[in-house]
Amino acid sequence: MQSLSFARRASHLSSTMPAPAHADRISFDSGHAFPGVLPDLTGEAENALSRFRPETLQYAPRAGLPELRQWISEYLATDGAHVSADNVLVTNGAKHAIELVCRALVDEGDSVVVTSPTYFSAIPIIRSFGAQFLEIPQDHDGMDVAALDDLLQQLSRDRRPLPRFIYNISDFHNPTGATMPLARRQALLDLAVRHRIPVIDDSPYRSVRFEGEPVPTLKALDQDDIVVHLGTFSKLLAPGLRVGWAAGATPLLARMAQLKSDAGSCPLTQRVVVEFCTAGRLAPHTIRVQDTYRLHRDRMVAAVHRELPDVTFRAPSGGYYLWLTLPAEIDGEELTQRAGEAGVTIIAGTKFFARSDIEQPRNHVRVAFSHASIEEIDEGVRRLARAYHSLADGAVATAKTAR
Amino acid sequence: MQSLSFARRASHLSSTMPAPAHADRISFDSGHAFPGVLPDLTGEAENALSRFRPETLQYAPRAGLPELRQWISEYLATDGAHVSADNVLVTNGAKHAIELVCRALVDEGDSVVVTSPTYFSAIPIIRSFGAQFLEIPQDHDGMDVAALDDLLQQLSRDRRPLPRFIYNISDFHNPTGATMPLARRQALLDLAVRHRIPVIDDSPYRSVRFEGEPVPTLKALDQDDIVVHLGTFSKLLAPGLRVGWAAGATPLLARMAQLKSDAGSCPLTQRVVVEFCTAGRLAPHTIRVQDTYRLHRDRMVAAVHRELPDVTFRAPSGGYYLWLTLPAEIDGEELTQRAGEAGVTIIAGTKFFARSDIEQPRNHVRVAFSHASIEEIDEGVRRLARAYHSLADGAVATAKTAR
Repeated sequence: MQSLSFARRASHLSSTMPAPAHADRISFDSGHAFPGVLPDLTGEAENALSRFRPETLQYAPRAGLPELRQWISEYLATDGAHVSADNVLVTNGAKHAIELVCRALVDEGDSVVVTSPTYFSAIPIIRSFGAQFLEIPQDHDGMDVAALDDLLQQLSRDRRPLPRFIYNISDFHNPTGATMPLARRQALLDLAVRHRIPVIDDSPYRSVRFEGEPVPTLKALDQDDIVVHLGTFSKLLAPGLRVGWAAGATPLLARMAQLKSDAGSCPLTQRVVVEFCTAGRLAPHTIRVQDTYRLHRDRMVAAVHRELPDVTFRAPSGGYYLWLTLPAEIDGEELTQRAGEAGVTIIAGTKFFARSDIEQPRNHVRVAFSHASIEEIDEGVRRLARAYHSLADGAVATAKTAR
Repeated sequence: MQSLSFARRASHLSSTMPAPAHADRISFDSGHAFPGVLPDLTGEAENALSRFRPETLQYAPRAGLPELRQWISEYLATDGAHVSADNVLVTNGAKHAIELVCRALVDEGDSVVVTSPTYFSAIPIIRSFGAQFLEIPQDHDGMDVAALDDLLQQLSRDRRPLPRFIYNISDFHNPTGATMPLARRQALLDLAVRHRIPVIDDSPYRSVRFEGEPVPTLKALDQDDIVVHLGTFSKLLAPGLRVGWAAGATPLLARMAQLKSDAGSCPLTQRVVVEFCTAGRLAPHTIRVQDTYRLHRDRMVAAVHRELPDVTFRAPSGGYYLWLTLPAEIDGEELTQRAGEAGVTIIAGTKFFARSDIEQPRNHVRVAFSHASIEEIDEGVRRLARAYHSLADGAVATAKTAR
């Protein structure tokens, strides 16, 4: 029953799900929430399943519950984006929105721009549509827009097809943590408009900010309806709800809605979210989330400085992750394996590079400070340091032997 | 921002969602549940969001909650199918499972076998992957397996590619209501095994049986792991939960799980379902569902006999729908439009034929007896009859004028 094409489709899908539960295992690998910050939604659910039962237990509109779309549009408006409810499509989390963008825009052989590195879960989704990746390097301010400019000019000169969309994470990039400054956002937009290439701004972490002022979103700067802003309640509220959204031009959203194979997303979880948000619970909850993860970040930053002085990184002002750069001779995949053996799960940096046909940096790992408690963060980094030293000492020994 | 390929992908997607709500509109068009039969799930949700909070508000395993997969495998086992929890993939409803099957198996230009007519929501999903439809006629016993045999033999002789899968609804076919007898199921299976073509048996209505004994499912007869059985809690419990499943061979299910762009399906609604089922509530609820829809069917059958004597149909022993055959000169799309104007929404039969490149029968409509109350069924059929007579009288007048 398996065919070549079946195998081809599956072969690039990495198994990057968290490792199986382990009594004593500490998880730095996943984007799970800290359990202590998961809200009590029993009241919202009670209401959703009694007063709103005829809504929450039937099929929902494909585009989402009208009240939720309205609420999201207002939420985005307070963040500077001029969108109406018609510009909002509710999805089963932001990853589902990435898939729908691909279904609407990408055919086999088309190309898509991503940063190097980029969000590892976006890679297999985009690849599964047969897209080729155009990787653009990053610095501490995010995507190198000048490099993108060069690439697009080159493609235009060569009369080669332009990419179908530019995938970016402008706020607290996953995995690097970088946030793109205003001038570069404007440059990216100008470039996208000039070449008429949609920009998919995947923004799950925007509200998980620990300090400093937010930079306007690409959507807030977007005069040409060329940006599709992806958001989610996964990081605001709870991943398990599977409620996210795409905000952008209505013709594209209408096509994405038609391509939702599940018809309407779950109206029960949508109603729970609406009830939570319209009751005014989101703003105080967001502060609690920020306070929690700021503590987690600070604890992990201190622990890595203390336990892993050879490792470099920039502490992010938001999000869930540290992107660690290892000394050049340390292989991130080996470290990931040894860390797992030492009882702490992390993700090898190689998972975050989209192109598999070129040599990629191997000396990175991503560690999440979101899920573990602060005690677990301390212990997890100690375990990671043990794994690191077992590897580094071996590398030094090998280097000495080689001399 | 729109391209040719964008337009192509979208052009075949019919807008077959229910018409907008209307104060006095009666809905015979949708597969919505009768509101009076929607269960009280507040206790299950309370439990799911308190005791199980760390599970229900985090990301879930891609394949589904282990307890739900186990429960589904036992449910299928009581129905004769020999599957373990490893053979079960939880999806966002059965339509999502159809999409995942296509993602795993279908490439542009591949062919897929469907009945003529077939489930209208499956058509745009399968078509969106670039598949060509091979339509097989039906009689009162469902798919004409002898015709399928001829087709597959012809393809083999011509050394042309075989279809990637056979899509069928063996129990209470949507829209025809036909249930395939045992001998024909066995013949279909034999054929599938001989040519090594997976059979996707979409079975949302199997438990919505009003009389008679169930025929063994294709999965129960399947010795070769060639059948993927699709089920859902949408018709058993509530569409809004968006919890369905695929049961089949583990290699295919593993690929489908990897292709789930939303990673794990919503753990909250999965846990609500598990709690409901393991508390023993499903069996009595199923009887209530059967009793309710049996009454609805009987009422609609009587009303159509009374109000629309020119129309022919076979009363189904289960499911949600009547498939009405109109006199040859009556156009189902025109009737659908006039019915809408008269305040009752139905679906034109032409929506259920997959091939748009050949002439298809136009004298059918599908009417659902599920959602409307029995009073609404009476009134809705009266409205449908008025719409019918306005059309039939016009058709007679036109015929007379033409003479």
